[in-house]
Amino acid sequence: MNTSDSSILSIDVAQIRGILVDFIRKEVNRTGFDCVVIGLSGGLDSSLACYLAVEALGSKKVLAIRMPYTTSSQESLEHAHLVIQATGVMSMTIPINGMVDAFIEKYPEMNAFRKGNIMARSRMIVLFDQSAANNALVVGTGNKTEILLGYSTLYGDAACAFNPLGDLYKTQIRQLAKAMNLPDVILLKPPSADLWVGQTDESELGFTYTEVDQLLYLLVEKHKSVKECELAGFKRDFIERVLTRIRKNRFKRVMPPIARITEGDAGLDL
Amino acid sequence: MNTSDSSILSIDVAQIRGILVDFIRKEVNRTGFDCVVIGLSGGLDSSLACYLAVEALGSKKVLAIRMPYTTSSQESLEHAHLVIQATGVMSMTIPINGMVDAFIEKYPEMNAFRKGNIMARSRMIVLFDQSAANNALVVGTGNKTEILLGYSTLYGDAACAFNPLGDLYKTQIRQLAKAMNLPDVILLKPPSADLWVGQTDESELGFTYTEVDQLLYLLVEKHKSVKECELAGFKRDFIERVLTRIRKNRFKRVMPPIARITEGDAGLDL
Repeated sequence: MNTSDSSILSIDVAQIRGILVDFIRKEVNRTGFDCVVIGLSGGLDSSLACYLAVEALGSKKVLAIRMPYTTSSQESLEHAHLVIQATGVMSMTIPINGMVDAFIEKYPEMNAFRKGNIMARSRMIVLFDQSAANNALVVGTGNKTEILLGYSTLYGDAACAFNPLGDLYKTQIRQLAKAMNLPDVILLKPPSADLWVGQTDESELGFTYTEVDQLLYLLVEKHKSVKECELAGFKRDFIERVLTRIRKNRFKRVMPPIARITEGDAGLDL
Repeated sequence: MNTSDSSILSIDVAQIRGILVDFIRKEVNRTGFDCVVIGLSGGLDSSLACYLAVEALGSKKVLAIRMPYTTSSQESLEHAHLVIQATGVMSMTIPINGMVDAFIEKYPEMNAFRKGNIMARSRMIVLFDQSAANNALVVGTGNKTEILLGYSTLYGDAACAFNPLGDLYKTQIRQLAKAMNLPDVILLKPPSADLWVGQTDESELGFTYTEVDQLLYLLVEKHKSVKECELAGFKRDFIERVLTRIRKNRFKRVMPPIARITEGDAGLDL
C-alpha cells in the first residue's frame, strides 16, 4: 500500500477554515443564539473546534468546559488550559466524579466499556445543562474518521447541536490544526479518549489514523470496491474489518427507526 | 371546531397492532439481538410498548426497568408494577437519586426545566448501560404528538434503538392500549412526565391531546394551511402556537448538522 501518498487527503486549509468558521456563525445565527459551549478535553478535535468557534464568534461568546474524571490524565487538563489561555475563551471546570461514581458504585463488576460510556454520557449531561443555563449551543467535535468507525458514544460525545468537524478525516484535522497554530503538545500527542489511563485511539482501534483514513477515502469518497482497495495495496482483512465497523455503527449516524403507519413524516418541515 | 369528530384519528387497532409487533420483531432480528429493555414509567406509552414487545418477543425477552427519583410518584411505581405482573416480563428497579443529586446539588438555583432534563438523561444512561450489560436493545416509547411538539428531552427519553410508537398520535395510543386491555388506572389517568409532583402534560402544554391531535392531523397528514385549519374551526393563535412548537423543536427530530466539505456522506450505506 502506498501509504506515503497522503496527498489525496490534503486540504486547502485556508478555504476549509473559511467554510467552517462560516458554518459555525450561520448555525448560531440561524437558531437565534449567539453563544456556544464546548467540552474541552485537551485533545486535538475539541481544541480545534474551540479555535474555530473563537474565530467565528469571538472569545467572549465561547464557553469551554473541562470535565475531568478521577482517571483523566492531569496532562489533559493542562492541555485544555493552554487552549483556554491561547484563545481567551470563558471557561469552567466541572468534575464528573460524583455523578459517575454514584452510578458505577452499584456495579462492582462493570467493565471499562460500560464505564467509558457512562463518563461520556455524564459529560453530555453537563454540557447540555450548561447549554440551557447559558443559552448557548453545544458544539460537536467528532471527526469523520470517528463517525464512520463509530468510535464514539451515542448520546455521549457524539451529542451536539451542530458539528463543524464531522466531514474532516482525522488526518485533515491535523493539517488544519497545524495551520491554525494549535499548541505543539496537543498537535503531537497520540490521540486518546482519555477514559482510562494509557488508552490511545490507535492501540484500541488496532490501526493508525494515517492508514485508515487512506482506506476510508477510497471507500467513502471514491466508492471503491473491496477488490479495488486490495489492488491499491490494502490487505483484505483490514478492508473487511473497517467495512464491518462502518456497517455495525450505522445506527449511530442515523435517527432511530420509527414504525411507519401514516403518510405524515414528523421529520419533515412544516 | 368540531372536536367531537375524533373519527379522523380512528385506527384499525388489529392491523396497527400487527404492524407494530412485526416491526419490533424485525428490528430486533435485523440487528442480531433477541432481547429488549424498556424504561417503564407506569405511564401509557411505555406500558403499551411493553405489551407490544411481549407480544413480539415473549415475556422472557423483555426487561422492564423502573427508574424512580425522589420526586416520582409512588403511584407511577405501582402502575409499572401492574404492567410487570400482567405481562410477566423481567424487571429491575434502579433509582436515579444518587446520580441526579450528585449533579444538581452543585446548583441550588437550578430550575425545574434543567432538573427534568437531568432526570430524563440519567434514565437514558441507566437504560443504555443495561442495554450493554444485557445485550438488549432500548425500545423507544415517544409518540407522534410528543415528537412533533418536541415534548421530550433530547438524548433523554427520546433516546432509543428503535421506536414502535413514534408514528401514532397520543389519541391513537389510547385506542390501541384500550384494545390491548391495559390496566384501567393507566388508561384513565392524566398523562404526566412525572418529573415533579402534580405535573401533567396537558396543563404544561396548555391544551389537550384531543384538541392538538386533531390539529396536527390536519397540518401534518393533510398538509392544510393555517387558513384551512382556521376554517376547520381552530383558533389562529392556537394554530400558530402549535406550528411554532413544531418548528422550534425540529432539531430534536434530525441528526445535528455537519459542515459539508467532501462528497462522501458518512450517513450513507456502504
